[in-house]
Amino acid sequence: MTSLGIGLIGTGFMGKCHALAYGSVKAVFGDVPATRLEVLCDVPAEKAEAFADQFGFARATSDWKDLIADPKVDIVCITTPNKVHKEMALAALEAGKHVHLEKPMALSLEDARQMLSVAERTGAKTIVGYNYLHNPAISHARKLIADGAIGRIVHFRGMVDEDYQADPDLAWTWRATKADAGLGTLGDLGCHLISLATALVGPVESLVAETRTVHETRPMGNGSSERRPVENEDIASALLTFENGVHGVVSTSRSAWGRKSYIGFEVHGTEGMITFDQERMNELRLYQNRGELAEQGFKTLLSGPAHPPYGQFVPAAGHQLGFNDLKVIEVHEFLKAISEGRNAVPSFREALHFEAVIHAIAEAGETGSRVRVARAD
Amino acid sequence: MTSLGIGLIGTGFMGKCHALAYGSVKAVFGDVPATRLEVLCDVPAEKAEAFADQFGFARATSDWKDLIADPKVDIVCITTPNKVHKEMALAALEAGKHVHLEKPMALSLEDARQMLSVAERTGAKTIVGYNYLHNPAISHARKLIADGAIGRIVHFRGMVDEDYQADPDLAWTWRATKADAGLGTLGDLGCHLISLATALVGPVESLVAETRTVHETRPMGNGSSERRPVENEDIASALLTFENGVHGVVSTSRSAWGRKSYIGFEVHGTEGMITFDQERMNELRLYQNRGELAEQGFKTLLSGPAHPPYGQFVPAAGHQLGFNDLKVIEVHEFLKAISEGRNAVPSFREALHFEAVIHAIAEAGETGSRVRVARAD
Amino acid sequence: MTSLGIGLIGTGFMGKCHALAYGSVKAVFGDVPATRLEVLCDVPAEKAEAFADQFGFARATSDWKDLIADPKVDIVCITTPNKVHKEMALAALEAGKHVHLEKPMALSLEDARQMLSVAERTGAKTIVGYNYLHNPAISHARKLIADGAIGRIVHFRGMVDEDYQADPDLAWTWRATKADAGLGTLGDLGCHLISLATALVGPVESLVAETRTVHETRPMGNGSSERRPVENEDIASALLTFENGVHGVVSTSRSAWGRKSYIGFEVHGTEGMITFDQERMNELRLYQNRGELAEQGFKTLLSGPAHPPYGQFVPAAGHQLGFNDLKVIEVHEFLKAISEGRNAVPSFREALHFEAVIHAIAEAGETGSRVRVARAD
Amino acid sequence: MTSLGIGLIGTGFMGKCHALAYGSVKAVFGDVPATRLEVLCDVPAEKAEAFADQFGFARATSDWKDLIADPKVDIVCITTPNKVHKEMALAALEAGKHVHLEKPMALSLEDARQMLSVAERTGAKTIVGYNYLHNPAISHARKLIADGAIGRIVHFRGMVDEDYQADPDLAWTWRATKADAGLGTLGDLGCHLISLATALVGPVESLVAETRTVHETRPMGNGSSERRPVENEDIASALLTFENGVHGVVSTSRSAWGRKSYIGFEVHGTEGMITFDQERMNELRLYQNRGELAEQGFKTLLSGPAHPPYGQFVPAAGHQLGFNDLKVIEVHEFLKAISEGRNAVPSFREALHFEAVIHAIAEAGETGSRVRVARAD
Repeated sequence: MTSLGIGLIGTGFMGKCHALAYGSVKAVFGDVPATRLEVLCDVPAEKAEAFADQFGFARATSDWKDLIADPKVDIVCITTPNKVHKEMALAALEAGKHVHLEKPMALSLEDARQMLSVAERTGAKTIVGYNYLHNPAISHARKLIADGAIGRIVHFRGMVDEDYQADPDLAWTWRATKADAGLGTLGDLGCHLISLATALVGPVESLVAETRTVHETRPMGNGSSERRPVENEDIASALLTFENGVHGVVSTSRSAWGRKSYIGFEVHGTEGMITFDQERMNELRLYQNRGELAEQGFKTLLSGPAHPPYGQFVPAAGHQLGFNDLKVIEVHEFLKAISEGRNAVPSFREALHFEAVIHAIAEAGETGSRVRVARAD
Repeated sequence: MTSLGIGLIGTGFMGKCHALAYGSVKAVFGDVPATRLEVLCDVPAEKAEAFADQFGFARATSDWKDLIADPKVDIVCITTPNKVHKEMALAALEAGKHVHLEKPMALSLEDARQMLSVAERTGAKTIVGYNYLHNPAISHARKLIADGAIGRIVHFRGMVDEDYQADPDLAWTWRATKADAGLGTLGDLGCHLISLATALVGPVESLVAETRTVHETRPMGNGSSERRPVENEDIASALLTFENGVHGVVSTSRSAWGRKSYIGFEVHGTEGMITFDQERMNELRLYQNRGELAEQGFKTLLSGPAHPPYGQFVPAAGHQLGFNDLKVIEVHEFLKAISEGRNAVPSFREALHFEAVIHAIAEAGETGSRVRVARAD
Repeated sequence: MTSLGIGLIGTGFMGKCHALAYGSVKAVFGDVPATRLEVLCDVPAEKAEAFADQFGFARATSDWKDLIADPKVDIVCITTPNKVHKEMALAALEAGKHVHLEKPMALSLEDARQMLSVAERTGAKTIVGYNYLHNPAISHARKLIADGAIGRIVHFRGMVDEDYQADPDLAWTWRATKADAGLGTLGDLGCHLISLATALVGPVESLVAETRTVHETRPMGNGSSERRPVENEDIASALLTFENGVHGVVSTSRSAWGRKSYIGFEVHGTEGMITFDQERMNELRLYQNRGELAEQGFKTLLSGPAHPPYGQFVPAAGHQLGFNDLKVIEVHEFLKAISEGRNAVPSFREALHFEAVIHAIAEAGETGSRVRVARAD
Repeated sequence: MTSLGIGLIGTGFMGKCHALAYGSVKAVFGDVPATRLEVLCDVPAEKAEAFADQFGFARATSDWKDLIADPKVDIVCITTPNKVHKEMALAALEAGKHVHLEKPMALSLEDARQMLSVAERTGAKTIVGYNYLHNPAISHARKLIADGAIGRIVHFRGMVDEDYQADPDLAWTWRATKADAGLGTLGDLGCHLISLATALVGPVESLVAETRTVHETRPMGNGSSERRPVENEDIASALLTFENGVHGVVSTSRSAWGRKSYIGFEVHGTEGMITFDQERMNELRLYQNRGELAEQGFKTLLSGPAHPPYGQFVPAAGHQLGFNDLKVIEVHEFLKAISEGRNAVPSFREALHFEAVIHAIAEAGETGSRVRVARAD
């Protein structure tokens, strides 16, 4: 297998996560092409240089177009703020590069749809950073459902919360603007939940919703008495109708004190139930209406080698995967797809649906009416 | 204090629970009038006799009107199927008896409103069996909220589930009919959640909702191939707007495998969060945005004498109250109200709001439109 | 069935618990003789009078010998401080009364052995208040073990903790003296754990142990600067060898901050494991080496009607029993034994073994040597 | 900082873990010398070649002496079976290499003591793979204790279990022999618990213990009817006296069904308690006797940037570290120690104490007598 050159734009939370994943994926899995960490881009140049040295990239640049133009780069990883995703992704695709894009794809659904269109025209491979999908516990939940372990699905509930915007005194930032951040908690957190809901139950057909901005203004900080409005939602909730007729409830808050990385869901079936919480990401809970009533109960399945690809990381159960390991699995999926000439999952196509749902929630929250989720085509 | 004579109609789940509670309330609390278990009513007469002996009632009858007419009876406890609540309650009230009624008050909101009207005209005291309200952990949650322990409330989420209608092969019963049972999971379970939501956050102003009948028909059983339709909902979910503007999400299912008495909620505030789950009814979880970040976390408060009236049952923390103890607290509230000449909580008036909300959810589920919750007056 | 007259000595924690249990046992179970609450004894007389009124006893006395002498009394309940257990129990037995005694039986093993001897001579029925044994979850654990659900038992671990002596500044009381309290945490808490260990694994043959007094002196309180020594142990741990060869570890502390009623154990078998914690007394956790590895995990069994006699209290699973309900089951066992003319469990005979074990632990802690547990005969 | 060349012996569980950690440590932390993955050794040569390619090592060898002799190698990582640790470590040390050795150090305490002696003579840096010590949650527990958050320590309890030897039908392997494996569960698991106990409470002075071989023989497998004896312990438990007088209880089993990576402990203090369980390695539970009694409870601290060095991996709390991340922190400690010219922790010196304790437990289990833990010097 020919090795693949990596160009990474961004050195923050997700930038580092990508650097670590592309740096270790072959050691973990073995069955993928070797990766070369070729170019790292950030501004200013000094920052790019420092992180290139730390992360092990061959060179640094402060010009993302320079990175994209580099013939040694086969895959462009985009981990920049949301509002520049579109421009970078389109440029990379047009340059014939495969694109690993952090979520959400873009500020608007129209932009995301255009990105999909370009991707499918160029034939480049794409993947979007819906990393929680790659948790072996989630894969096992999907397998259990597919195998009929809980019968026919009849209901879904999900919540995704953090508390990074819970403090009323927190200073105003660009995250509060529609122009720079787009959606609020829906874009940051909600779309992750939708990615899981879709993977577990199927696509969403329509919904009603409510959205709330809990902290309507925020101080500008630095001793100023000025306050600026928060333009996007802190909390959003929706009643979903999936295409298969199943009814679901979802809710998200970026102002939920105590919740650090909470993504909880329940899948109700005619023969059992599955529940999960990302803050205990190595545990899946399963109830099955089987055997003696006196011995029925929720069973905690602790992730292990019986839940692939856990065993690629640790050959012993219960030892725990971490958040960064999910990105390694995502990168593995991408490299396998590229080397096999197939589409990765979730590509721009699947991601477009996730994002169509959150935009539908935002619209339903504003209009108070039922909204049909836009189709990819 | 003059002792109070008790007449109990019904000997099932709630009937036994009432008998135990009225039989032990003075021993537990000390500060209430003595109770005399005077008349027990059920059909047939033999059943009433047998349970009167077991429960310690002075006499038995198979005629509830006889019970109500008995001058030794001061309090009439109604624990019969929902559809006869109204007739019995009205008769008892008109006979000048205090009424302890199991929830829901009636099949329709109109009936419930009429019952309130009669109760307030007669001046008799009433209480409705929203027993989870009386959990010391819930009372402590209310105290914490009132004391500002989690700041201003900004969001509420709640779920209430059981699995008694989860089995697709379960035989059809009267519970499936609107005529005999009225609402489905909303009437059995949902109203309990609303009682808690209201107690914690305040009255509900309006809502949108979805309701689903998961098992559309059920077999008649006994080898028959006939199936009859299920007329009421197995699952219901709603997006609530409380009168104080807070947004909430609630969901209920009577077909949720593995859930035995699950009533879970989260109250999100600007300075913290409180969560609870009835299946661990002696635990309240509290997060507060206080002190060092490294030492912030959800704290599990195990019920104890610091959470009245827990100490009336057991003087040592962590020893656990049980479900039947909640009814004792409810009865204590009723006896105190009667002896002090004040209204009990929740009387027909408060209960009417809880039930107005579930009827609004049912209506919103059918119409697909936002529904304003009917006011008591 | 002839009704049985109850005489209760003591009105504290356990006194109230007995009053409630004897007052409700027939209503709960139905299949036992009716009970008459005849005489309540405490000092001073006013206290006895007040509690007799509250608890519903026919008369009060401040003289326990008067209570024992009353021909209307068939069962004498002894819930007084440990050091008077022996004198009262012997008097009651000699008067031909059945004896319901709170644990521990006596301050010394010699006294306990003498009490057993008298009981067996008189033929009166006895039961000792090892109430945790009567939890339906524990009964189910025993059934699972007997049915081979976890194979052959190979190991046991148990802990029992509270924090009522955790505060270093707590004032000195009689509990700190060997003369009045006898053992420390072993007598208060440790014996409960041993009752469970024995029920689950079998009798104990020998052990080594360590005991510690964490707070060697305590202030006399009331502003005095005097401190007095704590003569008995705050913490005790032991390595047990059961008669069947199984090895076990037990540990107890009355100075364990945060532990309110913690009784946790693990039973390790060749085919599975059972774990339990009294602070979640309605849950039993079961792991079985069965089925697909990917679906193996600890299952939480929530107590319900499938775990008798839970259903006598509540006909719906998951609704939770409480601490006081355990005493009702204990009383039921006692009344059934009396009416059937068989021995109750645990009678003085079984209790003697539990107490022989804690005295052996205390001795081993003092001597540093392996101690064989004294046999009942 | 000069880069450091890594030579790794072994490609199994720990081998891969080392490869990943040395490959990513600089990307994660930034503040350490770059590492060069120089030589990978395993047998046969083809296996070494294949893993060298997968892990990214510059060359492969099947001769560990060749690896040690390579001047490009600065650090020798030894992840081979226990019985060859000594020979390899001594050779590496004599060759002037720093040594990163997996635990336990050696089969016998004598061998381990000799290894320490050589290490201290050569002046090479050493570290032993007691990786659980490096969990940020553990570091925070140590900080809390040092800061007096739970007062004076009065008691310790710990358990470490897995179930890899729980199946009675599992085939016999070299792990069952004293000659090849040395100790049983004590060497595999118990020493990890001791490393934590020592870090939290201090060194151990003496102990009494019991050890058990649950499965006394095992089948040879492959259809043979032969069974061979298991020479080392499946279960071991001990009552510890720490040098500071604190009393502790520890227990370990490699035959504990359902336990996958269970390392649980409780540290009891005069003002609070800390508990932990490795199967939920991102959670620390803290109880403090502070504030209102009604609001006291165990608090779950979810690891985050407030618990260094968590933030080097993920800048957001609650996202979860995994098992492999602990090795990265261990490697960081080693590289920092080497670059700063100080000893790493735990070096051979600290590890010797952990291993002295497990050998003392084994001896006490055999002799039935109290054993003083051997001192390093």
